[in-house]
Order: sequence, then C-alpha cells, then structure tokens
Amino acid sequence: MGETHDLARFVVENPSERIPHAVLHEGVRCFINYLGVALYAARDPSLDILLDLFKQEGGRPHATVIGAGTRTSLQNAALANGYLGHLEDYDDTHFPTVIHPSSPTLPAALAVGEQLGASGQDVLAASVLGMEACCRIGMAIHPYHYDGGWHITGTCGVFGAVAASGRLIGLDTPHMVHALGVAGTQAAGVREVFGSMTKPFHPGRSAQSGVLASLLSKGGFTSTTAILEGRRGFAAVLSSKYDLSRVTHGLGERWELHMNGLKPYACGVVNHSLIDAMIAMRSKPGVTPQAVERVSAKVHPLVLELVDRRHPQVGLEGKFSYQHCMAVGLVDGAAFPAQYTDAKVKDPIITALRDRINATADPSLGEDQAIVTLTLKDGRSYTERIEHATGAPENPMTDTQLNAKFRSLTADVLPQAQAEDLLTKLWAMDQVADVREIIALTRMKRRIPRK
Amino acid sequence: MGETHDLARFVVENPSERIPHAVLHEGVRCFINYLGVALYAARDPSLDILLDLFKQEGGRPHATVIGAGTRTSLQNAALANGYLGHLEDYDDTHFPTVIHPSSPTLPAALAVGEQLGASGQDVLAASVLGMEACCRIGMAIHPYHYDGGWHITGTCGVFGAVAASGRLIGLDTPHMVHALGVAGTQAAGVREVFGSMTKPFHPGRSAQSGVLASLLSKGGFTSTTAILEGRRGFAAVLSSKYDLSRVTHGLGERWELHMNGLKPYACGVVNHSLIDAMIAMRSKPGVTPQAVERVSAKVHPLVLELVDRRHPQVGLEGKFSYQHCMAVGLVDGAAFPAQYTDAKVKDPIITALRDRINATADPSLGEDQAIVTLTLKDGRSYTERIEHATGAPENPMTDTQLNAKFRSLTADVLPQAQAEDLLTKLWAMDQVADVREIIALTRMKRRIPRK
Repeated sequence: MGETHDLARFVVENPSERIPHAVLHEGVRCFINYLGVALYAARDPSLDILLDLFKQEGGRPHATVIGAGTRTSLQNAALANGYLGHLEDYDDTHFPTVIHPSSPTLPAALAVGEQLGASGQDVLAASVLGMEACCRIGMAIHPYHYDGGWHITGTCGVFGAVAASGRLIGLDTPHMVHALGVAGTQAAGVREVFGSMTKPFHPGRSAQSGVLASLLSKGGFTSTTAILEGRRGFAAVLSSKYDLSRVTHGLGERWELHMNGLKPYACGVVNHSLIDAMIAMRSKPGVTPQAVERVSAKVHPLVLELVDRRHPQVGLEGKFSYQHCMAVGLVDGAAFPAQYTDAKVKDPIITALRDRINATADPSLGEDQAIVTLTLKDGRSYTERIEHATGAPENPMTDTQLNAKFRSLTADVLPQAQAEDLLTKLWAMDQVADVREIIALTRMKRRIPRK
Repeated sequence: MGETHDLARFVVENPSERIPHAVLHEGVRCFINYLGVALYAARDPSLDILLDLFKQEGGRPHATVIGAGTRTSLQNAALANGYLGHLEDYDDTHFPTVIHPSSPTLPAALAVGEQLGASGQDVLAASVLGMEACCRIGMAIHPYHYDGGWHITGTCGVFGAVAASGRLIGLDTPHMVHALGVAGTQAAGVREVFGSMTKPFHPGRSAQSGVLASLLSKGGFTSTTAILEGRRGFAAVLSSKYDLSRVTHGLGERWELHMNGLKPYACGVVNHSLIDAMIAMRSKPGVTPQAVERVSAKVHPLVLELVDRRHPQVGLEGKFSYQHCMAVGLVDGAAFPAQYTDAKVKDPIITALRDRINATADPSLGEDQAIVTLTLKDGRSYTERIEHATGAPENPMTDTQLNAKFRSLTADVLPQAQAEDLLTKLWAMDQVADVREIIALTRMKRRIPRK
C-alpha cells in the first residue's frame, strides 16, 4: 500500500475527536478569514460572469454562492466560492509551499456540507483534513513544482477539495483512493495566467474538480489506486523531483496547518513589516500624523525594487507604494481594502505624510524584516525593529486582529448585526448543529456590484 | 503577436469555404466514426454514473447525451459525450501524436451547435478547425509531452474543444485568445489512470473545459494572451522541449487531419495487419474455415509479446489474442465488438481455427507489417503481405469500410432504419440546415445498459 492509500485512510478514518484542539482552532480561523475575503470579493463585477454562466447552464439549488446568495449545484458553488476566496489575493498562505489552502478546500466542504446539512464540527474536521492533505502533497513536490511554472494552489488544491468533500459525503478508504485518482488527474493551472481573472479561477476549478471526483467516486467511478506514487502519476508527471514521504510522515502528529499564515494587510507581502512598525508607532507618546517630522526605514533591497512609489494616483497603485502603506498604517492603524481606495490615496493627511517617508536598502535585512525610525517635530524619536511580519507562522495574526480584518471586509457587504452574528457563529463553529445556519448568514440582502 | 494569437485568428476568421473539400470530407468521416463508437458505448453501464450525477446536480436541457437521449447542460453533455467517444478505445488517432482528436472536440461542437441550432456545415467547419488546433499543438510538444507521462488527448483536447465551441459561439479573435488561455490552463490528465474509467474521462473533461472556457470568455472573463508561448505557459510547463512553429507553420495549407486514422478493428493495433491479411484470404479460391490446414504468420516480435493467447476464455481476452483476431477475420471478415463477445470466443468454428494458427517473430518486419501464409487441406497455399495496416494514414479505411463499422456498432443500439437515416444525414452533413436533425437520430428509444 502506497502513500495514496495511507493518505486516503487518514482522511476518511481519522475521527474528529483525534484532531488536536489547536488545529481545529486554526481551522476556524481559516473559515473566518476565508469568509471575510470571499464576502468582500462577492461585490466584484466579475462574479456576474460566473453567475450568468450558472443561470445559462442551470443546476439544482443545493449550495450557496457566498455573498450573492444564489443557490446552485455543488460544482457551480464550489467553482464560484473558490474564485471568490482568491480574487483579492488576500487569503491564507501555507508558508513553506505558497499554497493558499482555504480557497480550494473550504468551498468544497461548504457545498457538500450545505447539501447534507452537516454539522459545523464535521465540516470543520473535513476542511482541516483536506487542507492537511493539500499542503502535505505540496510539500512533497515543492519547490520543483512551483519553479516549473505550476500554480500550486490550482494543482494541489484538487486534493484538498476531494479530501474534504469526500469525507463529508461518506466515502470509505477504497472509494477515497479512487476519488484521489479522479481528482489528481484533473490537477491543472499554470502561472502564465497570473494577473488575470484566471488566477483565482484556479482554486475555483480545483474546488469543483474535487467535488466532481467525490461525487463520481461515490457512484462507483474507477481510477488509478496510485495517483500520488504511480510511475505516471501526479508527482512524477508534474514535478521534476519529489519526496512522497512528506505526504505521510508524522501524519496526525505534526500538522502543516500550523505553518499556514493569515494575511493581515491587503497589499504585497514586502510591505507588511513596514506597516507593522507604523502601527506600533501609534502607541508611542506624542505620535500623531501631524506631529511627524520624518520617517526613515531600512529594508531589504527588494522592497525598493518592487514598491517604491511616492505618488500613487489610484487605489490599486497604493498597494504598490511602501510610502502609502506606511502612511495608512500610522493614520488608520490598518491596511484593509478600505485603505486602498481611490479616495484614500488622495486624502491630504495621507499624501502629506507620504512625503515625509523614506526607505533605504540594507542587504543585511531579511525580506520580512524592517527597521523604522520615526522622528517628531519636537525632536523625540522612536525606532521599531520588526523581525517577522504579522501573518508569518512565527508571528501569527491574533484572533483580535482577525476579527478586525473580518469586520473591515464585511463592512460594506453585510449589515453590521449580521456580520457580528456570523462571526460569533464561526468562532463557535464546532457547536453549530447544521452548517446551513452559517451559510444563511453569508447572504447579502441585495448584491450591488462594486464599481 | 505570438502563436496563440495567430491560431485564434485562424480558428475564428477562416471562412468554411476556404477549408479544402478533402479536409471537410475527413471531418465527416470523423463524425461518422465518433458517433458510431459513442452510440455503441452508450449502452455501457458506467454511463449511468454520469447520468446519475447530472440528475443530482441538474442542468438546463440544452444538449443531448448521445444514445441516452438525456438533455442536459452544455458542459454536462460535453463531458458525457467525450467519455463515450473514448470509452471503447475505438476512436480515431492522429498518428504522429497519438492524440484522439474527435472525442474531446466533436462533443464540444455538438453541444454548442445543438443549443444554437447551427447548420451541419458550421458544426463541421468548427470541428475540423478545432481538431486542427488540437493536433498542431500536440505536434509542437510531441514526443516529450507524452513521454513525460501526460495523456495527450486529455491535455491538448481542451484546445480542440475551445476552438470548436468558441468559433460556433461567435467569439472574435481577442476573445478566442482569452478563451484559449482559460482552456489551456485547465489542460490535465496523467497516464497513470490508464485501464480505468478515468482514461475516457479525460477527453470528456477536456470537452467540458473547452466549452466552459468559451462560455466564460464570451462573458468577458480574462486570461493570459500567450497561453501557448508564454514563459510559464502550456508548452513551457507541460513539456520538456517544444517547437511552437509547428502550431502555425502552413496553417490553412497543410492539414494535420490528413494524418488522422480511423480504427477499423476493436482490438489492439498490433493485431490489425494480421486481420487485414485474413480478410484478404476470404476472396481466394477454395478458402473456407473448414478447408484450412494451417496458417503461419511472420510478425514483429512485439506481437508475440503482447497478444499471444491461444485460448481466450472471455470476450475481452479475445482482443489480446492474435489467434482469435485472425480467426474472426477469416470467418466473419470483421473485428468489430461483435467479434469479441464471450459467446464468440467459445464458438466451435472459431476455436477450431485458432488451433491451426501460429505466428513467429521476424525482427525485420515493422510493427504494422505482417506476412501470412494460409495452406488449405487440398495443398493449395496463399501468401499475403501487409505493408501498412488498414486505418493508417498510408492505408485509410475506405468510406465503405467506415459504413460497415458504423452499422455494426449501431446494430444493437438503434433500429436499423434510424441508423441508416443517421448515416445518410452524416454523409450529407454539410447540407443539414440544423444539426439538431442529426442529434435527434442519436436517441435510443429505450436505453438498456449492456451487461
């Protein structure tokens, strides 16, 4: 019996009670993070392309498209919800592999869970096991696979989706083995499409492929029993080198989900330590935007290469301006999408502060390190040194920070009371009798696409 | 402008009238061949797994599942019909690449054509152009891609499907460029699944992926504009070496479809020249099964390695018995599925003849060459030398042979009059005003799955 069988058995036979509390807690955080970003993304006009497609093609109303509230087939819902999870590039990241495990996995679990009326605990356990399968398979082929041009979230995502949905749907180990085969042979997604709608389409299609594989396998569809380790299987064909022992070594003891980071700021990761430093400055005596004389930062040279842009003209450019990122960090204490609007980059308090911020390269610093010195007009000066940006596994977002992210993302999407109900239910997800109670709270009253 | 753009323009802007008559005729032969094998396969019980899935998941009744007559969404129909085309491994083969171009491409064209009520001519032209795109992309990456473990029908199939469906749906060149991007990033399918239902699932999923890409692109979905030639695009990521000039060189002048062969016999290709020789023996004076003293064949050594099996016990084993293949060739003058039933391998005339047939290896012969000497009890002896088995581009099946294949495959599926009507309409496909006239004739009155 090879790795495929061992992984299949782990996914379907491991009882929820054997998953450590800390892992389940991390799973809940993934749900809160995923639903926050998906709800925010649900006002994007591009979702209409998918919704129109579902209307044309049809589908029984079994599962909900987040935000839109449309109910459609399991596969359609999985496609749309995977798309929404990754559209803003604001979902979680498994640091060792750069997989975004939630976006392909959680939509598959939610779709099947909604149809079955599964408990929150069951959906959570299936999702945690799915993400574990996805990340472990990623570990086995990283970095060769991604370096070869594959979008690892698209490819490995099918395994997260099939594991989560297959467990919920009640596949036994032999059926899960075949389901992994049907899913794994659908693994796809090249990096050439980055910068287009087809990038977030990858986790959407992965979620859908995984659900399809589970449904077919449930019906008796056959596949290979060695999709991972076979001579012409997933690892051999899609990666120049691989080590499949990483799929199974310490399974159930060591959890990759602990290496999964939630992204605190809605901009490129090279800005994150600088934002951290500026948010820390807000609690120093005398610090207000108006009191600042100058800010000097030392950063990894890459930061200047990628995001040196003093005068962004539109919101999107603000994401590629370390000056803007630092300014909003001090003024708003945040870097959510609300800090990257067209209005915000023209805000006079922000533009005045941007003019006083300068960074210089220091090759001795790591990519997520930064040293920031802020000098006030009265001569006082403070220095903050950031070793690991917030959101890294070494410095995770706190639950409080996650709540703030969720609230900011849902502010213009859901009524505040509904968002708070949803957040409360998510933190107690393991007590929710029927996951449809959660899903009901993701429906906008009336979806108005954001311009 | 790169190869992606040039191919997209060719596919959508080339008028049907500019496609040579001989190419369109080959396209008609592909339709007859495809529909014959798909109709035969439609009684396979595994189709029920897909039909049940469609019932669960739903879909508007826009396109027909061949044989079953079920109408479902475009994507579902494309999936099922691609599956049916390849299930018996009896579809066409583009010899230089071993792509089976009809199974992923024709279902995509038929689905969209049925919904639109497109003319036979338009569906034919779109299909021919789709198969050309599919095979040319295959040429650019062959043999490295297949050798790397990819099922080239699954991967390149997405391009055939998107080209055919996208042309029918009216994409202009820029939209077709994006559609190729959405399709190409879904390219998938590893050879590890060979021997299971997931092998024919590949062209099914390709057909579906291509239709999905066309529909999304029509709606304004964006992708890369360089899926073929991009640094992280299809060719670079899925093949260790490639030559994209093969995609565009002589486009519209030289047609890969002329290198596409239809398979005359329902068994492995190594038996084909032996069957050819035995069918030729039937017209020699005095030759009847009872009159045969012995048959001696010289063959490529591979034949003995793969298909030396004197006493097959069930129909499927008959396909891997050169003795059985040769015996039915002489007795029935055919090697259709009807020649590989459990009853046929136990037929006393066949078993008696099998005992008199012996082959020896001759390394000087090519894989599709054979020399067969038949000696009668009265001492007369005949020798046939086959240089290229029927179905190779050098020795294509005649239209008459294709008719016989179609009639044999549909004999236990459709009433004879209906099968004849369908065949007549297909030969005059370019005169059919609405492709739904053809599709209506693919419906069984009552589908009884074959045991």
